[in-house]
Amino acid sequence: MPGKTKYEQIAEKMVKLIESGVLQAEQRIPSLRSMSHQTGTSIMTVIQAYRLLEDQGMIESKPQSGYYVRPDYYYKHRQAVVLPEAQIQTLRTEADEVKISNIIEKLVKPLDYNNVIPLGSGLQAPSFYPSEQLSVHMSRAVRSDPAGLNRYCFEAGHETLRRELAHRMMEAGCNTSAEDIIVSAGASQALFISLKALTEPGDAIAVESPGYYGFYALMERLQLRAVEIPCDPQTGLSLPDLESALQKNQKIRCVLLSANLSNPTGASMPEASKKTLADLCRKQEVPVIEDDVYGELSFRLLRPRALKSYDPENIIYIGSMSKTLAPGYRVGWIAAGKYRRQVLDYYHCVVMSSNLPTQLAVASFLKSGGMAHHLRRLHKTHQENMFNFRNKIAASFPSGTRISNPLGGYFIWIELPEQVDSVILAEKLLAQNISIAPGIIFSAGKNYRNYIRLNCALQWGPGVAKAIETVASEVKRSVAD
Amino acid sequence: MPGKTKYEQIAEKMVKLIESGVLQAEQRIPSLRSMSHQTGTSIMTVIQAYRLLEDQGMIESKPQSGYYVRPDYYYKHRQAVVLPEAQIQTLRTEADEVKISNIIEKLVKPLDYNNVIPLGSGLQAPSFYPSEQLSVHMSRAVRSDPAGLNRYCFEAGHETLRRELAHRMMEAGCNTSAEDIIVSAGASQALFISLKALTEPGDAIAVESPGYYGFYALMERLQLRAVEIPCDPQTGLSLPDLESALQKNQKIRCVLLSANLSNPTGASMPEASKKTLADLCRKQEVPVIEDDVYGELSFRLLRPRALKSYDPENIIYIGSMSKTLAPGYRVGWIAAGKYRRQVLDYYHCVVMSSNLPTQLAVASFLKSGGMAHHLRRLHKTHQENMFNFRNKIAASFPSGTRISNPLGGYFIWIELPEQVDSVILAEKLLAQNISIAPGIIFSAGKNYRNYIRLNCALQWGPGVAKAIETVASEVKRSVAD
Repeated sequence: MPGKTKYEQIAEKMVKLIESGVLQAEQRIPSLRSMSHQTGTSIMTVIQAYRLLEDQGMIESKPQSGYYVRPDYYYKHRQAVVLPEAQIQTLRTEADEVKISNIIEKLVKPLDYNNVIPLGSGLQAPSFYPSEQLSVHMSRAVRSDPAGLNRYCFEAGHETLRRELAHRMMEAGCNTSAEDIIVSAGASQALFISLKALTEPGDAIAVESPGYYGFYALMERLQLRAVEIPCDPQTGLSLPDLESALQKNQKIRCVLLSANLSNPTGASMPEASKKTLADLCRKQEVPVIEDDVYGELSFRLLRPRALKSYDPENIIYIGSMSKTLAPGYRVGWIAAGKYRRQVLDYYHCVVMSSNLPTQLAVASFLKSGGMAHHLRRLHKTHQENMFNFRNKIAASFPSGTRISNPLGGYFIWIELPEQVDSVILAEKLLAQNISIAPGIIFSAGKNYRNYIRLNCALQWGPGVAKAIETVASEVKRSVAD
Repeated sequence: MPGKTKYEQIAEKMVKLIESGVLQAEQRIPSLRSMSHQTGTSIMTVIQAYRLLEDQGMIESKPQSGYYVRPDYYYKHRQAVVLPEAQIQTLRTEADEVKISNIIEKLVKPLDYNNVIPLGSGLQAPSFYPSEQLSVHMSRAVRSDPAGLNRYCFEAGHETLRRELAHRMMEAGCNTSAEDIIVSAGASQALFISLKALTEPGDAIAVESPGYYGFYALMERLQLRAVEIPCDPQTGLSLPDLESALQKNQKIRCVLLSANLSNPTGASMPEASKKTLADLCRKQEVPVIEDDVYGELSFRLLRPRALKSYDPENIIYIGSMSKTLAPGYRVGWIAAGKYRRQVLDYYHCVVMSSNLPTQLAVASFLKSGGMAHHLRRLHKTHQENMFNFRNKIAASFPSGTRISNPLGGYFIWIELPEQVDSVILAEKLLAQNISIAPGIIFSAGKNYRNYIRLNCALQWGPGVAKAIETVASEVKRSVAD
């Protein structure tokens, strides 16, 4: 700032702090001593600066306390907080130009937009989670051992939680001990760690298609090549296709899938197929990463077995409490079998020490036995919602539409008439405050352009029903075009 | 298991679950229906298996409730939990054969060993943290907004916390807005993300030497090459050496240092040097990562300015609440300047959604104004401890010992007589239940073999004084050898 005196420079700095909202109304500004130290100027210079600000009505001094931001000035001059607006940009959708992560960011996760009905997201309505109970458990946990939960935890998670998670895995048919479990801050982190542990940039990964867009976005980021293996909406990953891919391509470094209630299709592999897949990959010495975050959301009386139960060593299992209990508490886990050492190496880089308070809150909830009751209630809600969604879709969408009928989870996968471009559809709907997930984000090869995924985990009501009708109208319009 | 009938196989599976502790005394075992489903056998087969276990006294049935593990059997047969023992392995210390991370794991972080006096660790005594106050804030936070804290947080941290952190950065002379801050689960994660955002495997990083062993261990893991820039125990990073390294080596991808209260030396760069460094790196277009986790632990009345205050754009600032307030709550942050986009890309892979309850607990504590009082108390404790440590060391170590005199933090860096090998020293001391940090872990080139770092953040008392005497005796013995 040439030509400005030192005290003017300090005054300008303060103006910026106030107008950008770092300093707010009635907040104490740095002391003379602190500001003199920060700026390397004399106390007298700072006094001059503060007097200037006082004269201009920006700050006021309070006896024996210091200088404060004047509310009248603050509220007049505080820059409007720049909130992201629902600007709909037209995506360049030519192949190889669009990054999946960009589409997701623009169309699927417009969380900052108010009033969007999130048919495209993976988020459930807040009322679906037992958050009040959970906060009672949290409260109890931190108060009963304040210092014990405020320490570094260099182990791979707290013992009590790992024991509870081992129990949950037992229900999935796995004989996994608490010592085998590595607690992560959610399944995405677990997936990142597992993929980094097994692969190098440039490696090829066999992945189900359509498959969770998080798989494809992460592979994109980690410079991994996707070898897409078709996933049938009923029976899941195609074994013949996997087998031929493994034979053709010697360099497939791992197989990545959700064997139970896959996202977006809701497919669950038959038990016999799981066993065949596990045997095949063991023989070919290709590790498997099983993302089982929806496994506990099966509508059946008993949850389906984990793929890992068919090969505890060669399959890296990833679980999470985010879809069932506590998205905000960040509890996921990895049971890495014989890849434990590699996974831990990367885990320590990313996690170093894990979050004790939220681990203990979740452990305490699980230990209390509250999960069984909660899951029954959640399944019922999902099942009713799925029923309402499917009925509404069947009644309003044009002929030629095909909809999935999953036995759990909360996604519906819809095949629209061939001429519909779901990216354009998503853009049009977002302009009407409705999000949908366009099919192309569920693959790397930009397939499934005439597919969409809808999220049924919303509070059912006239608003949601209306939104489905709006989607249907737009689809019909696209067909007519 | 050939030759075994199905029901015997199921019984064996249950025995394993009990003996490995997955199922514990008086715990309910899977229902008949669940086990039949998990194992793909008929209910009758499971009944046979359970009757066999019942006959052998392993389980008992309770009317209308199910089968339970019998405590008498459990306690008799439960395998002893295998705890890591304090086995001292002799390290192979030839250059290029030892990995820093292995030495750290064996000598510095023996946390599972009971009764070790952790002079080698970086952990502070639990009583140094205001954990009870913090748990009151946590309790209030989760109870006042249970659902609000149990949701995904896709932003780079909760707004309230980011605002508080922006204030703390203001005290360090930075005009960083809440919008510029990315909340991470601690500083190690922040460092991982920042390094991954800026570098590729094989890249060279200019890093202070001696410097935090976490820097070197992480560079090792990420296959980065360390260009070691000498760090003076008083004035910190040597600017002439940095300048010549940047001129010689065109490929230095970033500079990594702690400009304030560097670990292990406790060095703080003079303000003029900070400015010179910031200007130099901007001109050379080399980004800087500033790890400022000890900045708030200065004994001076006012904390030193952050390096970032001299160049908000080119310097990635990393802060943390782990050294000052809450190691267990996992709150660190990144202010990435012009590298924000790259850092966020990697951040989303690693974090996806951040932990809301612990963020809000820390935010609430900060907002209450409790930090100023707590830090004054903490500084006093550290300063007294430092005084006691230095006196004891001066009185007991052999002549030829040189000890640092840092103006903050809680580490003392000690140069021992040249003939002392501190790795051997550390091994001998660990056998006597005392850990120390050997100098060689603070560099990549295995320098500082006759240096050690001691942790003064322990509850001072006769035990600690005695431990220092033991270290001194072993040092004298090494000198005599």
